[in-house]
Amino acid sequence: MTKLTVDLNADMGESFGPWVMGQDEALLKVVTSANIACGFHAGDPDVMATTIATAHKNGVGIGCHPGFPDLQGFGRRNMKLALPSLRNLVQYQLGASLAMARAQGAQVRHLKLHGALANMCSADEAMATACYEAALEIAPDIIVMVLAATAQQKAVEKLGCLWAGEIFADRAYNADATLVDRSLPGAVIHDPDHAAERILEMVQAGAILPETGDPIPAAVDTICLHGDGETALQIARSVRAKLESAGVVLQPFQGQRSC
Amino acid sequence: MTKLTVDLNADMGESFGPWVMGQDEALLKVVTSANIACGFHAGDPDVMATTIATAHKNGVGIGCHPGFPDLQGFGRRNMKLALPSLRNLVQYQLGASLAMARAQGAQVRHLKLHGALANMCSADEAMATACYEAALEIAPDIIVMVLAATAQQKAVEKLGCLWAGEIFADRAYNADATLVDRSLPGAVIHDPDHAAERILEMVQAGAILPETGDPIPAAVDTICLHGDGETALQIARSVRAKLESAGVVLQPFQGQRSC
Amino acid sequence: MTKLTVDLNADMGESFGPWVMGQDEALLKVVTSANIACGFHAGDPDVMATTIATAHKNGVGIGCHPGFPDLQGFGRRNMKLALPSLRNLVQYQLGASLAMARAQGAQVRHLKLHGALANMCSADEAMATACYEAALEIAPDIIVMVLAATAQQKAVEKLGCLWAGEIFADRAYNADATLVDRSLPGAVIHDPDHAAERILEMVQAGAILPETGDPIPAAVDTICLHGDGETALQIARSVRAKLESAGVVLQPFQGQRSC
Amino acid sequence: MTKLTVDLNADMGESFGPWVMGQDEALLKVVTSANIACGFHAGDPDVMATTIATAHKNGVGIGCHPGFPDLQGFGRRNMKLALPSLRNLVQYQLGASLAMARAQGAQVRHLKLHGALANMCSADEAMATACYEAALEIAPDIIVMVLAATAQQKAVEKLGCLWAGEIFADRAYNADATLVDRSLPGAVIHDPDHAAERILEMVQAGAILPETGDPIPAAVDTICLHGDGETALQIARSVRAKLESAGVVLQPFQGQRSC
Repeated sequence: MTKLTVDLNADMGESFGPWVMGQDEALLKVVTSANIACGFHAGDPDVMATTIATAHKNGVGIGCHPGFPDLQGFGRRNMKLALPSLRNLVQYQLGASLAMARAQGAQVRHLKLHGALANMCSADEAMATACYEAALEIAPDIIVMVLAATAQQKAVEKLGCLWAGEIFADRAYNADATLVDRSLPGAVIHDPDHAAERILEMVQAGAILPETGDPIPAAVDTICLHGDGETALQIARSVRAKLESAGVVLQPFQGQRSC
Repeated sequence: MTKLTVDLNADMGESFGPWVMGQDEALLKVVTSANIACGFHAGDPDVMATTIATAHKNGVGIGCHPGFPDLQGFGRRNMKLALPSLRNLVQYQLGASLAMARAQGAQVRHLKLHGALANMCSADEAMATACYEAALEIAPDIIVMVLAATAQQKAVEKLGCLWAGEIFADRAYNADATLVDRSLPGAVIHDPDHAAERILEMVQAGAILPETGDPIPAAVDTICLHGDGETALQIARSVRAKLESAGVVLQPFQGQRSC
Repeated sequence: MTKLTVDLNADMGESFGPWVMGQDEALLKVVTSANIACGFHAGDPDVMATTIATAHKNGVGIGCHPGFPDLQGFGRRNMKLALPSLRNLVQYQLGASLAMARAQGAQVRHLKLHGALANMCSADEAMATACYEAALEIAPDIIVMVLAATAQQKAVEKLGCLWAGEIFADRAYNADATLVDRSLPGAVIHDPDHAAERILEMVQAGAILPETGDPIPAAVDTICLHGDGETALQIARSVRAKLESAGVVLQPFQGQRSC
Repeated sequence: MTKLTVDLNADMGESFGPWVMGQDEALLKVVTSANIACGFHAGDPDVMATTIATAHKNGVGIGCHPGFPDLQGFGRRNMKLALPSLRNLVQYQLGASLAMARAQGAQVRHLKLHGALANMCSADEAMATACYEAALEIAPDIIVMVLAATAQQKAVEKLGCLWAGEIFADRAYNADATLVDRSLPGAVIHDPDHAAERILEMVQAGAILPETGDPIPAAVDTICLHGDGETALQIARSVRAKLESAGVVLQPFQGQRSC
């Protein structure tokens, strides 16, 4: 009988200059894929080099994590860029990632959009397509990590590239697969045990399980974890332990192709 | 009888956002190699994409032109960076260049340091070595353009990489191969005919010809031209015309290896 | 009989580091008020100092022209900032302007929002109010320049501060006082004579004159001119000449108070 | 009998965007003056507003703390700027500080240069003079905090402005009043008790007490403390407690004038 497998991912390399963010060392013991910032919304060439080296040493899959050019806003503020500018912004950041990985004898396996760029692309297929197409021109075999059941997924399905679907460990879902608004009660899950049980159910079901409504069959290829704060780290560890104890194999995703 | 060959290079892609700099279109009709800024001291992802595409279309050799992270100072202000930071800064910018060239079906053939970074490396072999070594880790076949007869040249000779030596079309030289200080009379050459004649002599002699003192045998592989202002463009065109009329073949350098 | 008076304004100090933008020297002979960039979307401390000094020498009213922190996008890309961040961003830029003016023995008379920040505030009264209120906390007597008949004007009317209404010399208006979309024919006026006649009519009517529909009574306190390109400068000069020949007095606005 | 008084100062407001640095809340209970970053090497308009408000609420003297435009390097990397650029850079940052303080009903009492800018000015009187003169043009009554017995102090003595001399709580001094090089043993003091005793002695002596050699009479107006890390905070608290128990009055400096 084939065992279930899933990937655990987290954003990393989000320090900048003298400013430290996150607990990358601890998280690298938990995740199987790391989304590494590229210097536009966080990270700098020194932080990238160190983070890529550490991820590589830990056998964690390395991902390019491009974002808007907005350090102060951490790439979380919507910016309206023309599609050609989006393309160039992605190629620039991916190029930097590829080179710095090569210098460490490592490889960039996947691409995941960051923050407001990711949010906008999860609602705007043309925008997602522009970003992914630009990346694929440079790295045709890169695996694009998408928010499952969003416009991001539609984009990769049409592009015919390798992709992996992602769900959140700490966020509740609506019946239409969107996230429950952060301002509503229960939108963010704080209890490590609850988060872990819920994720195990989704992995086993191969579906997003909304708070109310029917299961939504989805590509549950990777679970998004966080490392900012002790609670986040506890959730991450709890999810990993739960999945392992249920016999789920944790390993970097291989990507699927829709056409 | 083998014909003399030489390359003509100029900095390009130095616009930024809405700000235009230089006359790239006109210069691309004159030079055989273009040093394209990478977004740290000038250029941005949009400008890089456009400049690389245009250079490629014109058959001009494409070069990566990294500089200090100092837009306001245009990379011309000395900054004291630790060697590992220098390495990462070069790899980041080179990676971005490589990717954006690949997206255009083009190739990055050479690397030339910019502004204060170049000046500091022409006097500091360890610093030059750090930069070049970092680039070669990513692109082992890249041709490193060096200021002839400086610490930059010493660095590439020891590294055993492909390199090309550069002299200036519009600057007078001292007897020790350094440039005459800009504050002294005659340091900068403004007369297109004079510049052209002088460059032809140097190419034919295979030597730097200082204002006073003996010829200094040097690797005269490429001539540095400028495109800012009408005079600079006239000098560039005059140098090209003079070399062509003397039967010198103008083409991108192939690089030499010292060991 | 009281003579009609009006102000002519233009954006200035939009160079950055080595990059020159605009024809400030020429425009300063035409306008009576200058909106000077503060280093976030354009300008830098050196450019600000020079521009303020030159405007002061020419007897032109000095204005603070804050924008989004987006150099590459020249502050023209929408950014979604929280209101407290908007407030701080305005106070920071205004503070820098006030200080640099004081150092030149000059005064900052007015404030005008730039680019996407201005556009967003012309449709969002709460956002406009946040920006203006922040400025008034620091400089209670500053005259706020608003796009006439927009949410910007509503904001200043409620705040009870000094303000001046602005119309465009080179843009056609719809019947509801909004600008004709740039993508439509006739939206941008290129003919200097036409622009000048139209502006004179509006100044004399004290109203915006849309392409179709009735005059819209409006505070026509200042005319927005441009200096980028020869056509813009011709329009600027043509408007000034036309107004002068009709006996309209050109001088910096004094501001009005609505309550 | 007049009681001895001294000021305790620390750098603050060094967070940036999402990145937190330092323990400002805790330090504000210890110091009497805060040097608040202005957005060039650290801080941003939001961080400045919050820090100024909190310092004001705690009755701590507010200072402007300008630095080089080098976020990634935290203003600690030497940059070679022309004197007029230095002047403009100081005026810009001071202006932003003044405005943001005014918006909080607070006042900027002093100015202290940051990092590499401070280091360079402690060895280069012309550079220090340019910075201070620029600040005084805007705020003639500002108290300039200088590294005691350096070129910074020479500059303020000649300028005739209000100034205060600063010594370090955690650094050993050479016989010529310079700091012992960080690479030498004992250069940095880690023991809170030792630091506190040493500072009390210097305050009582009105002199710098080098490791070897005679006391150097100096203006011991303020003690520089740090808040990064638990040790730094312990030293800060230990120094404060020791001074208080010895009857030294801790209060913001008033500044002295040399001519």
